[in-house]
Amino acid sequence: MDIKEIEAAAARIASYLYMTPLVYNSILSNQLKSQVYLKLENQQVSGSFKARGAYNKILSYPESERKDRFFVAASTGNHAAAFCSALTNLKLKGKVFLPENVSTSKLEYIKATGVPFELFGKNSLHTEIYCRKVAEENNFVLVHPYNDPEIVAGQGTVAREMLKQQPELDIIIAPVGGGGLISGMGIYLKNKHPSIKLIGCQPVNSPEMVRSIESQHIIEEDISLPTLSDGTAGGMEKGSITFPLCQKYVDDWALLEEGEIAEEIYNMIKTDQLMIEGAAALPLAFLRQNTKKMQGKKIGLVITGKRISLEKLKSLFLNRASSDL
Amino acid sequence: MDIKEIEAAAARIASYLYMTPLVYNSILSNQLKSQVYLKLENQQVSGSFKARGAYNKILSYPESERKDRFFVAASTGNHAAAFCSALTNLKLKGKVFLPENVSTSKLEYIKATGVPFELFGKNSLHTEIYCRKVAEENNFVLVHPYNDPEIVAGQGTVAREMLKQQPELDIIIAPVGGGGLISGMGIYLKNKHPSIKLIGCQPVNSPEMVRSIESQHIIEEDISLPTLSDGTAGGMEKGSITFPLCQKYVDDWALLEEGEIAEEIYNMIKTDQLMIEGAAALPLAFLRQNTKKMQGKKIGLVITGKRISLEKLKSLFLNRASSDL
Repeated sequence: MDIKEIEAAAARIASYLYMTPLVYNSILSNQLKSQVYLKLENQQVSGSFKARGAYNKILSYPESERKDRFFVAASTGNHAAAFCSALTNLKLKGKVFLPENVSTSKLEYIKATGVPFELFGKNSLHTEIYCRKVAEENNFVLVHPYNDPEIVAGQGTVAREMLKQQPELDIIIAPVGGGGLISGMGIYLKNKHPSIKLIGCQPVNSPEMVRSIESQHIIEEDISLPTLSDGTAGGMEKGSITFPLCQKYVDDWALLEEGEIAEEIYNMIKTDQLMIEGAAALPLAFLRQNTKKMQGKKIGLVITGKRISLEKLKSLFLNRASSDL
Repeated sequence: MDIKEIEAAAARIASYLYMTPLVYNSILSNQLKSQVYLKLENQQVSGSFKARGAYNKILSYPESERKDRFFVAASTGNHAAAFCSALTNLKLKGKVFLPENVSTSKLEYIKATGVPFELFGKNSLHTEIYCRKVAEENNFVLVHPYNDPEIVAGQGTVAREMLKQQPELDIIIAPVGGGGLISGMGIYLKNKHPSIKLIGCQPVNSPEMVRSIESQHIIEEDISLPTLSDGTAGGMEKGSITFPLCQKYVDDWALLEEGEIAEEIYNMIKTDQLMIEGAAALPLAFLRQNTKKMQGKKIGLVITGKRISLEKLKSLFLNRASSDL
């Protein structure tokens, strides 16, 4: 994959999605003695950067063909929201597969989009396997959350926009799950501005990519514990194209604790009235952990999404002394 | 005042502020059987629409003069944030006046912008009177939160953008405090598309504009009780230019209860992961109260800002049964 695929993705998605703001954050910059810029993908169509990949994948089919195809995806989170947004806006046929235990609020969101859905499987993995099988048997288009060049190229447009908005960034920090986002960003950054340092973050509780990079192969054991960063949890499937891209393009890796993630979610609510998903707190936590190293630098952080459950929000508030409120 | 002043304001602020998204909200549209569009001024520079007026006022001075003037404002909320943002971005001299009891978190925000501040007075009214006096004695430029044609014109650009983004709106609903926003919007809407209905909302607990409209003069008694809609609380000063504009341009008025306001703040967090200020919940509450009348219409709501205190947020969560989480 190369930079041309990201340029092509940017052209395809331009009229459907936002160029989200890259905002200088004065409070964080003062606290950390550096220049901190937040790329607000929580404000993207569908509430996360995932719309970039989903729209790009679907738009990569010529319009005449698109109308005749049937698109499928399996997800309950940001990827499902992105997929449903694309089908609705582009007026295409398709279906989303959800695990039987999907939460009421997530189901309400999917229902409101009007995209047909099917409940199948005891957990996300079962649903994904079933969705791929249905796609293969029926010649449907599978819109995968990360293991697809068009998805990676779509997510890579985040880096392209950040450099347009602030060409002098020294460091970019992003959360990593399946690796679609950081792979696409890496392709763009390292071909365009190789001196920019790219850092990937995962929670200690679900460190599949970091452990895979250390082992030099994709680990298949289930090493995932519950984490506030649910958007990055769960690892990669065998043969994922994102793994060699991460090996090649990511300069450094970090693992963050649950307490640090909680702290940054709370801080964003407190100082910026910004609801961010747990994954988006990973780069913030990394930055606070490495204040000395980062001093004086221009740093871009990807705020990947906005979805956080009400239970988690409530406990963030309850666990804090009222003196802090 | 006329539409030309709003066009001039739009041209002045264009390169500094966002054209914020006007987003179709499918969950609300389904619930209310209408087409609901939210104008997300909570995502505006400085966190509210107030940046439009403050930037326009300051940019209305020619650049050569701007550099030599000293700008002042009195506020602890959205207007202060907007004013500080303008001074910092435009690299101008000025000062913000804050009441002595300003909260730590608001003070931290002001400090982080680097704009000089002075603490004076036991409450906002004392601070405002002092600020106006200092401005008059020193020939400083007072950037008033609403009682100024350039402020009104700046806020009016919200309506201009909404009509560009969705020209077929039937109804627009906005919160009203001093009336700067709805006055500017009214001038634009009623001159451009007189058939669009414009509705102003206030909390039952601070209904100064509504009572003034009823009395056909600006009421001066203090009738304000505490309200979640702190952004609209407190009434107008004598001789405000916004009062006759509201009389002329606003089609209908509504008063909303604290419980309804709380419900809508909570709903936005729950369904859209959007933190909104109490004032922004007023149009949402009005809409839910008038579902039948609004059925089948295209309705635009101004989500004016994002600031809500952590105490208020915490109590929203604590007052809700865990079954709802």
